[in-house]
Amino acid sequence: MARSSSGVRNAALMCAADLIDERSEAILEANAADLETARIGGADATSLDRLRLDAHRVASMAQGLRDVAALSDPVGEVVAGWVRPNGLRVSQVRVPLGVVGIIYENRPNVTSDAAALCLKSGNAVLLRGSSSAIVSNTAVAGALRDGLEAAGLPKEAIGLVADTSRESAVAFMQLEGIIDCLIPRGGASLIASIKEHATVPYVIDGEGNCHIYVDAGSDLVMAQAIVVNAKTQRPGVCNAAESLLVHRAVATDFLPKLAAAMPEVALAGDEATRVILPDASLATDADFGGEYLGLAMSVAIVDSIDEAIDHIARFGSGHSEAIVTGDVTAAIRFTTEVDAAAVLVNASTRFIDGGELGLGAEIGISTQKLHARGPMGLRELTSIRYVVMGTGQVRT
Amino acid sequence: MARSSSGVRNAALMCAADLIDERSEAILEANAADLETARIGGADATSLDRLRLDAHRVASMAQGLRDVAALSDPVGEVVAGWVRPNGLRVSQVRVPLGVVGIIYENRPNVTSDAAALCLKSGNAVLLRGSSSAIVSNTAVAGALRDGLEAAGLPKEAIGLVADTSRESAVAFMQLEGIIDCLIPRGGASLIASIKEHATVPYVIDGEGNCHIYVDAGSDLVMAQAIVVNAKTQRPGVCNAAESLLVHRAVATDFLPKLAAAMPEVALAGDEATRVILPDASLATDADFGGEYLGLAMSVAIVDSIDEAIDHIARFGSGHSEAIVTGDVTAAIRFTTEVDAAAVLVNASTRFIDGGELGLGAEIGISTQKLHARGPMGLRELTSIRYVVMGTGQVRT
Repeated sequence: MARSSSGVRNAALMCAADLIDERSEAILEANAADLETARIGGADATSLDRLRLDAHRVASMAQGLRDVAALSDPVGEVVAGWVRPNGLRVSQVRVPLGVVGIIYENRPNVTSDAAALCLKSGNAVLLRGSSSAIVSNTAVAGALRDGLEAAGLPKEAIGLVADTSRESAVAFMQLEGIIDCLIPRGGASLIASIKEHATVPYVIDGEGNCHIYVDAGSDLVMAQAIVVNAKTQRPGVCNAAESLLVHRAVATDFLPKLAAAMPEVALAGDEATRVILPDASLATDADFGGEYLGLAMSVAIVDSIDEAIDHIARFGSGHSEAIVTGDVTAAIRFTTEVDAAAVLVNASTRFIDGGELGLGAEIGISTQKLHARGPMGLRELTSIRYVVMGTGQVRT
Repeated sequence: MARSSSGVRNAALMCAADLIDERSEAILEANAADLETARIGGADATSLDRLRLDAHRVASMAQGLRDVAALSDPVGEVVAGWVRPNGLRVSQVRVPLGVVGIIYENRPNVTSDAAALCLKSGNAVLLRGSSSAIVSNTAVAGALRDGLEAAGLPKEAIGLVADTSRESAVAFMQLEGIIDCLIPRGGASLIASIKEHATVPYVIDGEGNCHIYVDAGSDLVMAQAIVVNAKTQRPGVCNAAESLLVHRAVATDFLPKLAAAMPEVALAGDEATRVILPDASLATDADFGGEYLGLAMSVAIVDSIDEAIDHIARFGSGHSEAIVTGDVTAAIRFTTEVDAAAVLVNASTRFIDGGELGLGAEIGISTQKLHARGPMGLRELTSIRYVVMGTGQVRT
C-alpha cells in the first residue's frame, strides 16, 4: 500500500463505490438479517436505527467513497525541507502510518467511511465492528475489498475481524507490532476499555464538556444565538455546549432572555444564577464537570475572564471552549490561556468537526495532545519520515 | 508558563546560564559528593565518567542554555490557516504540551539540557534523574529554578523529583492528569520499564539497528567511506550502522576492500559473504536483528533492491536506513518503500541527529510513528490548538 500511487488508490475507491451501488440490494438483505437478530435480541429503537441501512444510506456510503477519492492526497507531502551547510538535502515527508485499527460500534457506515480514509492515506486497515452489524459489515467490506482487487491492490489491505466476541476486542487492542494506530469510534465504555486494555498506540476522543463564556460588554443577541445553537442544535454530540459562564455585569440582562429562548433546556446554576433564575436547580460539581449529552446545561456567574478561565481549567475536558466577546484582549487571552483542542471566539462550539472546519473528512476528534488534536482528517492518518539526500557525506 | 512570552522565557534561560557559571564551584562540589558515593558503591569507570562534571562541562551546560535561548520560539507558530465559506477564520496554532516529564540516567547535563528545551517551548518540566546524580542534579536544577524566578516566572515550572527510589520511578510514569508527555533518556532497561509501567502518554527512542545497502553500480569508494564512517565513527550510539547489505554484482569487489579498511570491526556474514570473506563468522538471526553498539557488523549479500528492502523490513528497527546508489529509481524506491524514521541516500546514518539535521537541539530520537518521528526538537515538545474566530456564526 505504501508504494501504491494515489491514482491507483483513488481508482480502488471509485471501484468500491460502484460495487456498493451495484450490490445495494444484497447489502440491504444482509442488513435485514442483522436487524432481525437485533430485534429478537431485544434491541431498543435507538440501536435499531443506528444499525438500519436503507437505499438512501447505502447510496450515501458510495458517495462518501467518491468524495474521499476527490480529496487531495496527504501522502508524499513535503512538510518541510532545507539544505545543511555540508550540502545534505533534508526533508520531512508525509508517509502512511502503516496499519490502522478501527474499533467501532453498530453503525455499518463506519465500515466504509473509516476504510476509505485509511485507504486514501495509503494505510492498510483492520476493522473490528460490533457483533450486531457483522453481516452488514461483511457485505460492505466485501465490496471494498473487491474494489481494491479491481484496481490491482491487495484485498488484504482491508481486513474485517470475523470474531466479534468481547475477548477478540481485547485481543485486537493488543496487536502489538501489527496495528500502528488504533482509533475507536464509539461511546464512553469503548474508550474506557481501550484505556484499560490497549497496548498498541491509539488516538482517542475524550468527552466534550464544552463551555461558552459570555463576557462583559458582549453582544447579547449574538451570545444568545450562539448559546442556543451550541446547546440545542444537536444536544447528543461531543461538540454541543454543556456549561455556560456569564460575566456578572451582563448576567441579569442575559440569563432571563436566554432561559426564555430555550425553555426545553433544564438549567442547573450556582447560587448567583439562582437569584436571577429561581427555577434553575442548584448545580453540583457533577453538573459542572460532566457531559449531559441532552437538553440540560450548567450555569455559573463569574466576576472576570480570569475566573472563567479558571473554571474551565477545573471542569473542562479539553474539547472545545468558546468566548463571546467584543474585546480584543479578552479574545487573545481566552484563545491563549484556555487549554483545549479548540477555542472559539464568537462562534458556536458545534463547528468543531472535520467537515465544518473544512478538513473534507473526519475519522474522529482527538482530545489528546500527542500526535493529533481536534478533528482528525487524512493528515492525522499519516506519519513523517526524514529523507536525507547526500553526495557521499560522512560525519567528522 | 503557557501565557509567558518567549522574551521572558529567554531571559530565564540567560539568567539560569549566568547562575550556572557563577555557581560552577558549588556544582562541582555537589558532583564530587555524588562521585564519592558512586565510588564507594563500586561504580565502574564508564558510569563514573558519565556522572563526572568538570569546569569545562559546567561551562558547556551554561552555554547550552544560551544556545537554546537563541533558537526561534515554536509557540504561537500558525501551522495552517484558512477561511471557511461562512466566514469563520480557522487556524492551527502551536501551543506548549503542558507538563513534560523527563526520566533519565546518570548524566547530570541532561538536567539542564532537557529543562532548557521544555522551558523554551513553554512547558513546565518534571525531572526524574537517577539516585547516583541527585546531589549534582539538585544543584543544577536549583540554578535553573532561580533563573526562572529572576525572570519573573514561577520556579515550580521546573521540578526535580527528590525521591530516587525504584518505586518513585514507576509512580512517576503513572502521573496521569499531571504529565502530558513523558520522554525517557536512557538505555534499553529504562525503555522496557516505560513500556511496562507508563500510563501517561510517552514518546520513546527505540533501538537503532541501522542498515546500509550498497547497490549494484554504486560508487564503491563512496560506499566504503560511508560504511566505515557509519560503523566506526562512534559505534556505541543508536545511529551507528549495524548491518551491511551488498548487491551481488559488487560484493566480490567491495567486501575485501571494506574489510581491510576497518580491520577492527568483527564481521558476521551469510554464506555468500563467507565465500568472499572467509574470516567472517556465520551470521545468525540475532546478528541480523540486534544492535551491536560496538565494533561488529552483520553482512548479507542480496540479489536485488527488493531483497534489500525485504531484509530491512524483516530485521530493521525503524530508526535510520541508508542506500548507496547512483541510480535515481533505486533512490526513489528505497526512500519510499523502507519504513523507518529516516532514510538516507549516499550519506552516513550518523547524520540522523537533531544537531546534524539542523533542528538546533534534540531531546531524543523517536522511533514511534505517532506524534514525533526521528530527531525531536522544540516543535516536538508542542501540540496544536484549533483557534476559530467568528462574527456570531451558528450551525444550521
